[in-house]
Amino acid sequence: MTERLGPPLGAPLFDRLALIGVGLIGSSIARAARRKNLARVIAIADAAAEARERAVALTLGDEVVADPAEAAAGADLVILCVPVGADAAVARRIAPKLKAGAIVSDVGSVKGAVIAAVGPHLPKGVDLVPAHPVAGTEQSGPDAGFATLFVNRWCILTPTEGVDPAAVAKVRAFWEALGSNVEVMNAAHHDLVLAITSHVPHLIAYNIVGTAADLEDSTRSEVIKFSAGGFRDFTRIAASDPTMWRDVFLNNKGAVLEALGRFSEDLTALQRMIRRGDGDGLHALFTRTRAIRRGIVELGQETAAPDFGRRKGEDDNGNA
Amino acid sequence: MTERLGPPLGAPLFDRLALIGVGLIGSSIARAARRKNLARVIAIADAAAEARERAVALTLGDEVVADPAEAAAGADLVILCVPVGADAAVARRIAPKLKAGAIVSDVGSVKGAVIAAVGPHLPKGVDLVPAHPVAGTEQSGPDAGFATLFVNRWCILTPTEGVDPAAVAKVRAFWEALGSNVEVMNAAHHDLVLAITSHVPHLIAYNIVGTAADLEDSTRSEVIKFSAGGFRDFTRIAASDPTMWRDVFLNNKGAVLEALGRFSEDLTALQRMIRRGDGDGLHALFTRTRAIRRGIVELGQETAAPDFGRRKGEDDNGNA
Repeated sequence: MTERLGPPLGAPLFDRLALIGVGLIGSSIARAARRKNLARVIAIADAAAEARERAVALTLGDEVVADPAEAAAGADLVILCVPVGADAAVARRIAPKLKAGAIVSDVGSVKGAVIAAVGPHLPKGVDLVPAHPVAGTEQSGPDAGFATLFVNRWCILTPTEGVDPAAVAKVRAFWEALGSNVEVMNAAHHDLVLAITSHVPHLIAYNIVGTAADLEDSTRSEVIKFSAGGFRDFTRIAASDPTMWRDVFLNNKGAVLEALGRFSEDLTALQRMIRRGDGDGLHALFTRTRAIRRGIVELGQETAAPDFGRRKGEDDNGNA
Repeated sequence: MTERLGPPLGAPLFDRLALIGVGLIGSSIARAARRKNLARVIAIADAAAEARERAVALTLGDEVVADPAEAAAGADLVILCVPVGADAAVARRIAPKLKAGAIVSDVGSVKGAVIAAVGPHLPKGVDLVPAHPVAGTEQSGPDAGFATLFVNRWCILTPTEGVDPAAVAKVRAFWEALGSNVEVMNAAHHDLVLAITSHVPHLIAYNIVGTAADLEDSTRSEVIKFSAGGFRDFTRIAASDPTMWRDVFLNNKGAVLEALGRFSEDLTALQRMIRRGDGDGLHALFTRTRAIRRGIVELGQETAAPDFGRRKGEDDNGNA
C-alpha cells in the first residue's frame, strides 16, 4: 500500500466496491458512491431475492448477486451493510475471496462486537476499518435509501492498533466524499457514547410505544388519535428496523445496561420530584434540557424549524 | 342563551374574545380567530411587558393590556392561555368583571385540576368549558404562534355536568372554525389518556436529555455532536416551555405516576431481555411497535415522510 492520500485526479477512489447488504444504508452508499464516482464497479450482494430485485430495478450497482463472496472477490473496499449479528457469518464467507490489500469496513452501530466478530476471519494483508455513519431514517430496504443521507452527518471510524494508516485514510476519504465529517476513536469509547446518544434513546422509544401497544384496544386507539401531544415523536424511532436493533442491543449489552442504569436513577429522582410537588426542581431540570437542543441546532445536527419542520410550507411562522 | 348553533351568516361567532396570555397557543388562537373572523374584538392580556410589546408589534389583537380583568370585562368568550398553575389566580381576578352569559375556557394540558382551580371562582350564569388543543411546538412566546397550528389537530372539551349545552356548542364551533376536530370527554379520562400520549413522553424526554446534561463536559459535547443517532429527537420536546410543563406534572400527579409506573415495569422487562440475550423477545417487541406508527400516519396525525421530513427538498427519495 502506497502513501498517497488521494486518487489521481478523475479516477475513482476504488476500482471495485462491494456492498454486502442493500438496505437503507447499503443502498444510500451505492447511490452516493455512484453520484460521486467513487468506484469504477459497484458490486452488491444481498441474501434476499426481493432486495436484489429492487437493487436491479433501481440500478444501484453494476453487479447484483446473492453470494457475498462473489461480490467481495477482487474488491478493493468491502462494506458490510447487514445487521451486526450477521457480520461474523459474512466475514467467514468472504474471507477466502478477499484480495491482498483489500479493506473491509462496515456500517454497524456497535463497534467492539464487530471487531470481535469480523477481525479473526480476515486473512493477513487485509485491513479492517470499522465505520459507523451516524445517519439513517426509520425506514428500511433498498427503496428507502437516498444519496444525501450522509451529508453533514458524522461517520466514526474505529480502527484497531496496527491497522495500516493508509487504509484508514482511504476509508476516511470515501466517507468525506459522501459528505460526512469523519472522526476516529477507539471502539470501546464509541460504544459508550453511542449507548447514550442512540441505543438507549431507541430503547426508551421502543419501550414507551410498547407500553401503549399493550393497552386495551379502546385506550390504544385514543393514544394513537391524540398522539400529537408528544407520543408520536417516539413512534418514529420505534418504527426502526427490528433486526438491526435487536442486534445492537445484544451486541452492546454492557454499555447499554450502564447507560440505562443512569437513565433509571434519574427517572426515579424525577418521579420523586413529582410525587413531592417539587416545582422548583422540575423547572430547573426543564430549563437545563432546553439548552442542550440549542447546542445541537448550533452544531448543524438538527433543523432549527419548530416541530422538526413537519408542517413546512403550510404556514409562515409570524404571519397572522 | 338561545339554541342557535351558529352565528348569523357573515357575523363573527363572538362579539368580544379575550385571550389571557399570549404565548405560542394564545398568539396562534389570536392569528387564527382574526383570519377566520371569529370575533369582532380580540382583547389580549399578558402580565409580561415583553409579550405585550410583541403582541402589539404583531397586531395580534385590538386591545393589548396587562390586567386580565380589563381584557375579560364584557367578553363573550374568555380563554385562559397561561400555564395551568396560574389559572386559579387569573380566574379569581377576572370573575368580578365577567358578564352574564360569558363562557370561560382554557387550553391547558390537564383538565381535572383546571376545573377545580377555575370553577369555584366563576359567578352564576358563566359557563366553564375547558378545552385542550392537542397541538403545539417546542417553541414559546408570541412570535412562535401561527394561524394553522390547530388545523387537523384534535381539541378535547371536558365540560362538567350541568354546563349549558349551548355554551359547549359555541366552543365546539370556535375550535372547528380554527380547523380542529373536536372531541368531548370527561376530565378524568382526558387526564389518564394524555398522561400516556403526552405527559409521560415529555417526562421521559426531559429525563434522558437531563441525563445527558449531567455528563462530564467532554462526554456531553460528544453526545451533542453525535445526537443524530436518535437522541436529538428527544431534545425537541425537552426544549418545551419549562413553566408550562412544571405545572402539568404538578397538576396531573396521579395519572402521570400511574402511567410512569407502567413504563418503568415494561422497561425493567426490556432490560432483563437484553441482559439475558433474549433476541426473540426484543424482535417481537420491536415489530409490534412499528405497527403503532403506521396507525398514526394513517389517521393523518403524522407525516409519512421519513425522518419527519426533516430533509425535505434536499434529495428525492428513490433517486440515485
